[in-house]
Amino acid sequence: MSKFSKDDQTTVAELKLLVQRFMEARNWGQGHTPKNLVMSMAIEVAELMEHFQWGDREDYTAEKLGPEKMQEIRMEVADVMIYMLSFCRSLGIDLSEAVQAKQEINEARFPADRVRHQE
Amino acid sequence: MSKFSKDDQTTVAELKLLVQRFMEARNWGQGHTPKNLVMSMAIEVAELMEHFQWGDREDYTAEKLGPEKMQEIRMEVADVMIYMLSFCRSLGIDLSEAVQAKQEINEARFPADRVRHQE
Amino acid sequence: MSKFSKDDQTTVAELKLLVQRFMEARNWGQGHTPKNLVMSMAIEVAELMEHFQWGDREDYTAEKLGPEKMQEIRMEVADVMIYMLSFCRSLGIDLSEAVQAKQEINEARFPADRVRHQE
Amino acid sequence: MSKFSKDDQTTVAELKLLVQRFMEARNWGQGHTPKNLVMSMAIEVAELMEHFQWGDREDYTAEKLGPEKMQEIRMEVADVMIYMLSFCRSLGIDLSEAVQAKQEINEARFPADRVRHQE
Repeated sequence: MSKFSKDDQTTVAELKLLVQRFMEARNWGQGHTPKNLVMSMAIEVAELMEHFQWGDREDYTAEKLGPEKMQEIRMEVADVMIYMLSFCRSLGIDLSEAVQAKQEINEARFPADRVRHQE
Repeated sequence: MSKFSKDDQTTVAELKLLVQRFMEARNWGQGHTPKNLVMSMAIEVAELMEHFQWGDREDYTAEKLGPEKMQEIRMEVADVMIYMLSFCRSLGIDLSEAVQAKQEINEARFPADRVRHQE
Repeated sequence: MSKFSKDDQTTVAELKLLVQRFMEARNWGQGHTPKNLVMSMAIEVAELMEHFQWGDREDYTAEKLGPEKMQEIRMEVADVMIYMLSFCRSLGIDLSEAVQAKQEINEARFPADRVRHQE
Repeated sequence: MSKFSKDDQTTVAELKLLVQRFMEARNWGQGHTPKNLVMSMAIEVAELMEHFQWGDREDYTAEKLGPEKMQEIRMEVADVMIYMLSFCRSLGIDLSEAVQAKQEINEARFPADRVRHQE
């Protein structure tokens, strides 16, 4: 990744807005209930998973996958994220807050000084 | 969501870093190959899906779900996001760039003036 | 279903054998590890799920789906079953025995006279 | 597997009936729509997938997994099958017929003499 990546410059809210505007411009989203959107997330993750179905760990580096396959993978991850942002919006979930709260729970559950994996 | 939500103030890179530091502090992640991480995403999405398994659309509003259930749902979405960020890191994927690129493809494929859903 | 359906006349072992012979005739299955096969099951279930993504319960009867869609659905369920039979074979699992054992556990856990749902 | 396994002696219809009677004895299944049942299949496959999440192919033999883990795996596969049989019943699908029809399609698509993998 370059020093000034998009991820460095983009808030989660900006991505949410991008997705929301797309839907509103088309007056879409009547079926976008939380139940249907979580199904969509599962479907898109499965499509992403297809790219990693038959090989072993050494087959799946960015280099071995190559630029074309990597682009397909990028677009599949994007689909998961897009549906996840719609899912969050459908229930008023702040994704960043959720991640931070979950990481705090994980910090408490797995104290670094006690669970640290030794080489 | 409040006017100044976490999503408004948090970049994707900051979430990525949060997850990365957690892993590094524990020297974890030896099994965190792209293949295993996409499986983890699928597993976490399924756990999220469990909350929406048997009811109909009217059962799944934030109000009807209630604060306790909503908190569980938040933590499950967080798990999906956490593994997705690790997945992106494992292959050097810029998630914001991917979402923007995918939305541009969708814009071209579904021109708003032609596909707009009529009430 | 007709009175003498295929399901009435076909043992699980016969289906297993059908799948096994197909693979052997092609000398396929080198990547058919338990890990890869359970991923395949997940991928195929997701493809099946796609047919039920956006509608509500009343949309998904055999009649409303129509013969063409129903045929697609049949072929997707078959894919799940085919990979599941390969998965079972890869670990020496007797599927019928597993189902019967699980149902006995369920019988004990949910005694009919105590959990019976009242109209 | 023993010479006379359950799979040798059990038809798909018998397994279907086992599941059906369990549900009827409890007057359960009001939420057992095709949409909900395919979600259940996806959830159960994900639980099965958890057992194969972090290791490589050499870690997942029946011997290395051990009897306790193998029993958990058996019960998870059973859950997938149980929901799949309910799914088939909800739409009047003959699973054996579907598998045979799909294998015929695969036979035609991948003629053994042309696609045979060489060692």
